[in-house]
Amino acid sequence: EDQKKQQKQKTSDPFSSDPERHPVLRINSLKPFNAEPPPAILTERYITPSVFFFKRNHLPVPNVDPATYKLQIQIQGPDSERAAGTFSFSLDDLKTKFPKHTITATIQCAGNRRSDMHKVKQVKGLNWEISAIGNATWSGAKLRDVLLAAGYTPDDAKWAKHVQFEGLDQDIAGTSYGSSILLSKAISEDGDCLLAYEMNGEALPADHGFPIRVIVPGVVGARNVKWLGKIVISDAESSSHWQQNDYKGFSPCTDWDTVDYKSAPAIQELPVQSAITTPADGATVDRSDEEITVKGYAWSGGGREIVRVDVSVDGGKTWRIAKLKSSDEGQEDKNSTPAPGQAWAWKLWELTVPLPEDAAEMEVVCKAVDSSYNVQPDSILPIWNLRGVLSNAWHR
Amino acid sequence: EDQKKQQKQKTSDPFSSDPERHPVLRINSLKPFNAEPPPAILTERYITPSVFFFKRNHLPVPNVDPATYKLQIQIQGPDSERAAGTFSFSLDDLKTKFPKHTITATIQCAGNRRSDMHKVKQVKGLNWEISAIGNATWSGAKLRDVLLAAGYTPDDAKWAKHVQFEGLDQDIAGTSYGSSILLSKAISEDGDCLLAYEMNGEALPADHGFPIRVIVPGVVGARNVKWLGKIVISDAESSSHWQQNDYKGFSPCTDWDTVDYKSAPAIQELPVQSAITTPADGATVDRSDEEITVKGYAWSGGGREIVRVDVSVDGGKTWRIAKLKSSDEGQEDKNSTPAPGQAWAWKLWELTVPLPEDAAEMEVVCKAVDSSYNVQPDSILPIWNLRGVLSNAWHR
Ligand SMILES: [Mo]
Ligand SMILES: [Mo]
Repeated sequence: EDQKKQQKQKTSDPFSSDPERHPVLRINSLKPFNAEPPPAILTERYITPSVFFFKRNHLPVPNVDPATYKLQIQIQGPDSERAAGTFSFSLDDLKTKFPKHTITATIQCAGNRRSDMHKVKQVKGLNWEISAIGNATWSGAKLRDVLLAAGYTPDDAKWAKHVQFEGLDQDIAGTSYGSSILLSKAISEDGDCLLAYEMNGEALPADHGFPIRVIVPGVVGARNVKWLGKIVISDAESSSHWQQNDYKGFSPCTDWDTVDYKSAPAIQELPVQSAITTPADGATVDRSDEEITVKGYAWSGGGREIVRVDVSVDGGKTWRIAKLKSSDEGQEDKNSTPAPGQAWAWKLWELTVPLPEDAAEMEVVCKAVDSSYNVQPDSILPIWNLRGVLSNAWHR
Repeated sequence: EDQKKQQKQKTSDPFSSDPERHPVLRINSLKPFNAEPPPAILTERYITPSVFFFKRNHLPVPNVDPATYKLQIQIQGPDSERAAGTFSFSLDDLKTKFPKHTITATIQCAGNRRSDMHKVKQVKGLNWEISAIGNATWSGAKLRDVLLAAGYTPDDAKWAKHVQFEGLDQDIAGTSYGSSILLSKAISEDGDCLLAYEMNGEALPADHGFPIRVIVPGVVGARNVKWLGKIVISDAESSSHWQQNDYKGFSPCTDWDTVDYKSAPAIQELPVQSAITTPADGATVDRSDEEITVKGYAWSGGGREIVRVDVSVDGGKTWRIAKLKSSDEGQEDKNSTPAPGQAWAWKLWELTVPLPEDAAEMEVVCKAVDSSYNVQPDSILPIWNLRGVLSNAWHR
């Protein structure tokens, strides 16, 4: 029986055409492929190279032919006649009929740092450490421009509230990955949503959504749908499993017997986050050194900018202020200062501190503050939730 | 010498025309008048009656004649000719030339709950307890409509970044209270900024800005300038003390010797907040009762909605989910459900819990979560700052 199953899997393995991946990635799940880079790689460069960017696949990577690719757009109202129609754009249409925009945006998985939550009390989900986050440049057509070209008018905002996305990735039953965002985010001039065909200046890699991925800056990775096949303007949220019964936050007192998925909103903007990438957890520091350099990343959802990162080397008793970086050294671009509410990219930070003289152990902790002065919570148990999402307590 | 001073103060007391106030208010400062209601009053009604709404005055209350009142508007660019001009509107203009809009919005002082911070380590500022917050209906002209009527055009967004407000309240040297907000907030259709002439259906009370107060929903009280005299569209923030050298957040490691006000952004949107209004701190509970009802408020800045409040009666070890209210009982208005990002009003909450059987003491704690899944920090010391603003740790 087991052998038969294995045999069948080998011959018709839906993951057989998945792309090659960099061997340095730490694999959380092979099929579907989910993996993250070693933390120190994240702070080596302001822009995360695509090969090191975390891979979060829900399903097999689809093999899309760019020559025949069509993005379908449906406007589900206000009358049945209009709802019946569908607009479609080829990849060439998206590249040539709309101005090309480039933004730098950080994408974070809702489950980033789930392992910290899992350590204090069991949760269900992939055991991500701190690297299910990355920062890239994304180029493509503005989602807004494409929706307008497909016939969206400002009047539609009276009935339409959501923009649904369907991926071309499918399970064996033919169900596609799907999710939705608010129409207001999708259509806003300042929302900066893109139908991206490039990541870091090259065609999207297969693992990151080739040929088209919607980039929804400031919003959880799960809504940045890859291998985008269809867009639906609707009065309703996506009915998909991932919008309705996953990617939501709950109280620490909610368990699998009491959870009511309807009672919580779908995660969209993520809360303020930061983590220490170096020194690594449990690293030994040379006693002959007089100081140590601590590095990490910090980011907040909704375009809120990181305004400060505090670092402690005594477990949170006293703090110092880290130096923030919005680019690699010597590449600061004055024109790239984001407008308020459009700070889509992370800040890397570092701080060199004298080694405490007597301590045998040193507990390094970081916490970030965003432009709405939201802060990270001190500890994990009070934000623990059964799915292990939104894990943003101080990192130690 | 002292007698002479007192004499002078009596005869030319700039506070002598301040209005009468309700005797139940707890006074933090008499001149200027700063006072807050007893906490239990806040959760008696969803809409805070104006007499109980906290008063936060920086200067004497100005005596404004509504018949001769003029609101001046200056657009400081892009050329000197235009910048030299000033538009002005009478109170009657504001009431009759623009559609009247009504919103329900919570206003919170940056210093609300400063006393909790002061308890753990000394801070500078008025010793507000938990009631420097209130929820009212505000009616008036949309700031957006008035700025457009004064000649603002979308092209101005290329050079203009801020909207400055000057109050008619002045110190002895003639300096007015002032502050500014982002132009994007002021001009946005969804920003809902009002030039309010009514609070809770009546003309603005003298303590709340008669005849005009700008309401900037989702933004700290300090930018909701009362007795509004002048609006300036500018490329720069307000140069006032309150914008530049006050109302900013700092690290717990920053003291009066090291503080650099230029290093932190002016507080605009406030972080997620909640507090317990009843039972009162230190209250004794009747042992013959089998349960206790805990009540409080919760609110977040930036139009982010409160999606959950967790309550603990064992100091934060275990939690229960409170019932949220967006109106008084029996007055739920389906049409008043706010659009995402426009949840300007607080939620009141309550929870009836069985009394722990054995405990001699019961420590009640609350913490709220907003629609971006931002949470309150566990403890106060790590968010302590020298001015005692942004005090939003769990309330106990
Ligand atoms: Mo995710
Ligand atoms: Mo304030």
